[in-house]
This record gives sequence, structure tokens and C-alpha cells, in this order.
Amino acid sequence: MERTLALVLEYDGTFYRGFQRQDGLPSIAERVEAALATLFGHPTPVVCAGRTDAGVHATGQVVSCVTSSPMPTRKLPVAASALLRQSSIAVVRAAERAAGFSARRDALSRTYRYQILNRVAPSPLLARRAFHVGATLDDDAMRRAALELVGEHDFAAFCAMESRHKSTRRKIEALELDRRGDLVDLRVRADSFLHNMVRIMVGTLVEVGRGRRPVPNLADVLQSCDRRRAGFTAPAHGLYLEHVSYAEPV
Amino acid sequence: MERTLALVLEYDGTFYRGFQRQDGLPSIAERVEAALATLFGHPTPVVCAGRTDAGVHATGQVVSCVTSSPMPTRKLPVAASALLRQSSIAVVRAAERAAGFSARRDALSRTYRYQILNRVAPSPLLARRAFHVGATLDDDAMRRAALELVGEHDFAAFCAMESRHKSTRRKIEALELDRRGDLVDLRVRADSFLHNMVRIMVGTLVEVGRGRRPVPNLADVLQSCDRRRAGFTAPAHGLYLEHVSYAEPV
Repeated sequence: MERTLALVLEYDGTFYRGFQRQDGLPSIAERVEAALATLFGHPTPVVCAGRTDAGVHATGQVVSCVTSSPMPTRKLPVAASALLRQSSIAVVRAAERAAGFSARRDALSRTYRYQILNRVAPSPLLARRAFHVGATLDDDAMRRAALELVGEHDFAAFCAMESRHKSTRRKIEALELDRRGDLVDLRVRADSFLHNMVRIMVGTLVEVGRGRRPVPNLADVLQSCDRRRAGFTAPAHGLYLEHVSYAEPV
Repeated sequence: MERTLALVLEYDGTFYRGFQRQDGLPSIAERVEAALATLFGHPTPVVCAGRTDAGVHATGQVVSCVTSSPMPTRKLPVAASALLRQSSIAVVRAAERAAGFSARRDALSRTYRYQILNRVAPSPLLARRAFHVGATLDDDAMRRAALELVGEHDFAAFCAMESRHKSTRRKIEALELDRRGDLVDLRVRADSFLHNMVRIMVGTLVEVGRGRRPVPNLADVLQSCDRRRAGFTAPAHGLYLEHVSYAEPV
């Protein structure tokens, strides 16, 4: 009997070219599919909720797959994580879903966290985990600027130049800054995201925080639909796909 | 003119044999002394507050040294951290101290943090940063057991067998458990520590938390002065030297 499963994944994206399979390059999908094929005894293609780019991490990626294996879902996290240990990937939770469930199509929203280390000295313990900004950031200015991005807009200015999307309209449901000492988290939730959208938003907000861009500016940048008007693309290693929400939580 | 300096260090201890120089083996001391010799133009031996073992990390190690270089202390963190980047070591802060200051002798107390990941699945992002305990831990039992260790005692039962210390009496000023979701921090402050003392205390408390050791037990273990009565030595990679306190904070 076939069952449809949803799996929550954590991974260290440092040494991957991203989630999606790419010929001959290391990808999260390739490793996860190989581990599931070993466990289930049949090829097991997966569909993901968010195609993370090269170097981007996840603490709450969700994938769906179909299996004819009778393995109980409660055994999956330990068994799959053991096979994926050397790949820096873990299956954190697993649940059964109705036939036809798709991690991508059924996702209601995605939440990304971007971690910034804001102090003079770098942190060896967070070297591949946070973007190091040595200059002092003005949290209040960043918070006020962030509010200009919340809501439904055309985000063409916050999309990688080479990308092709049917529509560049997206709805940002929340964009919040949270500081604990030297660590600044920018957390953003939207229905879905354009290519590099979170990293360009973060780069632009960092320019605001450093005083290199005025606060009442992002509405103009949005209206321009011009990628060159937005800020730099913040590096991949500060970004985490943190949560994907569904009508029924995984 | 000679100046005495105090430096606060962060490091990833994963690939080191510990802080102290050991012939031909990679040590934090060797790397830091090499970087300071380059910056100052003369050999610069350092004295540390806590001799961390192989694989143990630090976010607040303190070292003292003497230099004839006129380099301003405010430039040291960036300059030294740049030289130490490939070594996974950073100088977080630097301050001038009175002649004769010793990071070891003048330390009033040391605080270590031990990080446990308490969930079924391992975490790739914390693989070398936290001790993974899959079985559910009983926080309350661990907190009650921890109280038996607080105060001044003979900690011979919590000291690595092969060690030689003049006295095995130490004073634990605080030992607290703090949980945020799956992450459990055990934070312990004492005047100083015996060899492996924190890791043996943590291993023993984890046995309590798993229900493999009764709660009113640690006072007996202390009194026995017998290492075999205490628990296992928790692995190095969950341990961080977090803070060293002085009459004048560094």
C-alpha cells in the first residue's frame, strides 16, 4: 500500500550546491533520495517546500515523498539521520499525509531566518552560521525600513537579475528584527519568495542599519522594480529555511 | 615601554589538542603566540585562565601577555583575528592591565557552559557544538541533583583518574540548568576546576536526567571520593569556557 509522507529536514548547506539536483554536483535532494531509497527499497523522489541555494542552511525544510515501505514514521528520524550523518543532513520529524500531499504546493507560508553577528571581531564558532558585520547597526532604523517591505508588493527590485518568475508579486506577512547581544536575527514570512529575495532584502536593510541608505527609501526601491536600486545580496551562510506552515502542521 | 595586556579569546576547539602547547601537536597557545609575535615583533608567551582540553571550545577564554609594541589595544581584536582566521580563533576584546597581571592567578572565578541537544534526531548544524542525548531528560531531577554539588566540597570523585592536583577541594558557586526547547544548557561557576570536573558532573547529571541514577545520590558520590562512583565523562564538544571574572572586568 502506498503512503505519502512529509519529512522535516535540518541541514548544514555549506558544502552543497543547493537543495535541487544538479548534474554531478552535491545536492541535498540527491543525498536524501539516496538514503530514502536505501531505507524503503525503492527509488524515492522528493518534493521540497523551498529550493534553498548553495550554502543556505535549513532547520525546518519540508519534503514530501511516496513509499510502499511499511516502516513506521516514528522510526524514520533515527534511521534516516543515521544514514545521512556524514552528509550533515538530519530528518527531524516525519508524518503521514493524505495521498496527493505536496510539500511545495500545499505550503501556506515559508519563514526564513537570517543571522547576523554584529561586533568588531569575527566568531570562529559561527563562521559558517552567521554573516559578520563589524560596523554598528542601527536596529531602529532597520525595523522602520523593514515595515516598508511588509504587505503585498511587486518585489522585482529584490530578485536576482537572471531569474525568471511568472509573477514578481509576493506578500510579506512579517519581517522582524530580534537582537540578543551581538546576534541579530531577521525573520521573514511570506507566501513564497523570489530568487535571492531574502538575501537582497537583508543586504538592503544592512545598508540602512549602517547609515548608508536613508530609512524612507524602500517604498521607492519597490516601485522602481529595478534590481540596481536595492542593496547587495547578503551571503548565503547567514540564511536558514526555518519553518514551512501547512493547514495541518508537520 | 612594556605593557601588560588581557585578551578575551573565542575559539572552535574541534581540531586542537587543547589550549596548552604540546610538542608537535596543534594547540591554541601555539597559534595565538605566533599571531601576537607577528603583530608585536617579539616573542609573546601567553598565560591562560583555564586550560581547556582537546575539543573544548571557548567564548570567553582570557589570556595575559606582556608587550613592548605601541599597537593600541582597540586595534588588536581586528588585527589579531585576521591573522587567526584560518585557525578558528578570534580575539574578541583587549585591555591594558597593571604590570604583574596574570589571567590565571588573578581570576576570581571561571564559568563553563555545557550544551546538550535533547531530541530524537541529531543536529547537523550543532554536530560539533552540542552533546546529542536522544532520550528525554528530566530537567527537574537534574536541577535537584545539581544542588547537591553546589558549595565547597572535595570533588575527588569528579576528577579524571590520572590527574594530580595539590588539593581536590573546590567551591561551586552556581550550577544551573536552562532549557530552550531542545537545547539544554548546564552552566557552572567555581573558583577553579579539577581536570574533567565539568564533564564528569555533566555525565553524572545526564544519568540522573535519564532516570539511571537516583536524585539524592550525589552527596554520597562526593563523600566517597571515588571516581568510579560518579558518572561518565560527557564529550568535549559540548563544553565552552564562557567567562572568567576578575576584580576589573576585561
